[in-house]
Amino acid sequence: MMNGVTIASKTVGRLSLYRRLLESSIPCGREHVFSHELALLACVTPAQVRRDLMSTGCSGSPGKGYRTKDLIDGISKVLDYPEVQRVALVGVGNLGRAILSYFSGRRPNLRITASFDTDPQKTGRVINGCRCHPMSELTAVLGRESIATAILAVPAARAQETTDLLVASGIHGILNYAPVPLRVPEGVFLEERDMTMSLETVAFFARRAALERK
Amino acid sequence: MMNGVTIASKTVGRLSLYRRLLESSIPCGREHVFSHELALLACVTPAQVRRDLMSTGCSGSPGKGYRTKDLIDGISKVLDYPEVQRVALVGVGNLGRAILSYFSGRRPNLRITASFDTDPQKTGRVINGCRCHPMSELTAVLGRESIATAILAVPAARAQETTDLLVASGIHGILNYAPVPLRVPEGVFLEERDMTMSLETVAFFARRAALERK
Repeated sequence: MMNGVTIASKTVGRLSLYRRLLESSIPCGREHVFSHELALLACVTPAQVRRDLMSTGCSGSPGKGYRTKDLIDGISKVLDYPEVQRVALVGVGNLGRAILSYFSGRRPNLRITASFDTDPQKTGRVINGCRCHPMSELTAVLGRESIATAILAVPAARAQETTDLLVASGIHGILNYAPVPLRVPEGVFLEERDMTMSLETVAFFARRAALERK
Repeated sequence: MMNGVTIASKTVGRLSLYRRLLESSIPCGREHVFSHELALLACVTPAQVRRDLMSTGCSGSPGKGYRTKDLIDGISKVLDYPEVQRVALVGVGNLGRAILSYFSGRRPNLRITASFDTDPQKTGRVINGCRCHPMSELTAVLGRESIATAILAVPAARAQETTDLLVASGIHGILNYAPVPLRVPEGVFLEERDMTMSLETVAFFARRAALERK
């Protein structure tokens, strides 16, 4: 189960993608799949697929490819915890609510089981299938539910103080949708997903490409 | 204006971030800022900041740093189009609506001015400040409004066909929130923002870090 083995975060991301593609896009009843087929669906090279799949311990045969079921099981062994892994969401605004409904039921082993907000109109209620707690209960709820992963969707001004509280409460991984970069101590994994940065980057290159065509 | 000069997408993303930090986090009236101050806020190294800012043509002085106003103007010259740059959103579900309200008024020069959906309950209405058109009008609306940038928030099963239609209708940059990778022709800039991939990656490293602490 990858103990002590280093694995790059991009590899983990692609394994997550391969599994979904195997579950959803490989026609039912197809017992085997070639690396080049998976590569086409994932928009990467076949060599990349083969390298990534080495971490699962699965090996394919040149004539038949990989057994689909073995691949799904192998990836799940790397990615999934045997028990349900619980996730917390902090910030139940428009984006937070969209995140809740997006992830609802998507992966049985990875569930947003607690959300937090400062707004008393939201706390104490179940919003999009998830109970919303006041911030004052954050440390207690995270401890009780053994939550180590959090999604942050609070305004920029509250993001760093919320992060500090999450880290002090035992969080080891943060997916950040707040529009500001975060500082975390070593040993806490952080993935930044600033939507403004993404959109300004895409708009910049779209404009350049459009101008070059003229 | 960067004509013919190559600039990495990560640099563009960081310039977007520096500008927001200069506008929001540098105390009012501070006429100058040092690269190490900006680096601290952006969670990058001072050398990275100085390298990135070279693309804006701004230069700092060793004793005083950069003039804040010059930096904001210099970054805007790189990132912004002199006119408003319009963006289309395809898919006005929970995530699409959250994206609309998130970007509403956030950057005056970059605006989501048209949205599209297949649901007749949504089309013809103004949702979160943006008119929702039927998919059949996509090509006409994008042409009329000179839109070259699109955000995709449709279900996985519709993502590739929608992308093909966007590209055929003159889109040159796509920010993809659909949970499936896209194939685009050369010359179209694509940024993938698969939320499941992000969450599974963060959860994986959070679990590892939590286990190592035990």
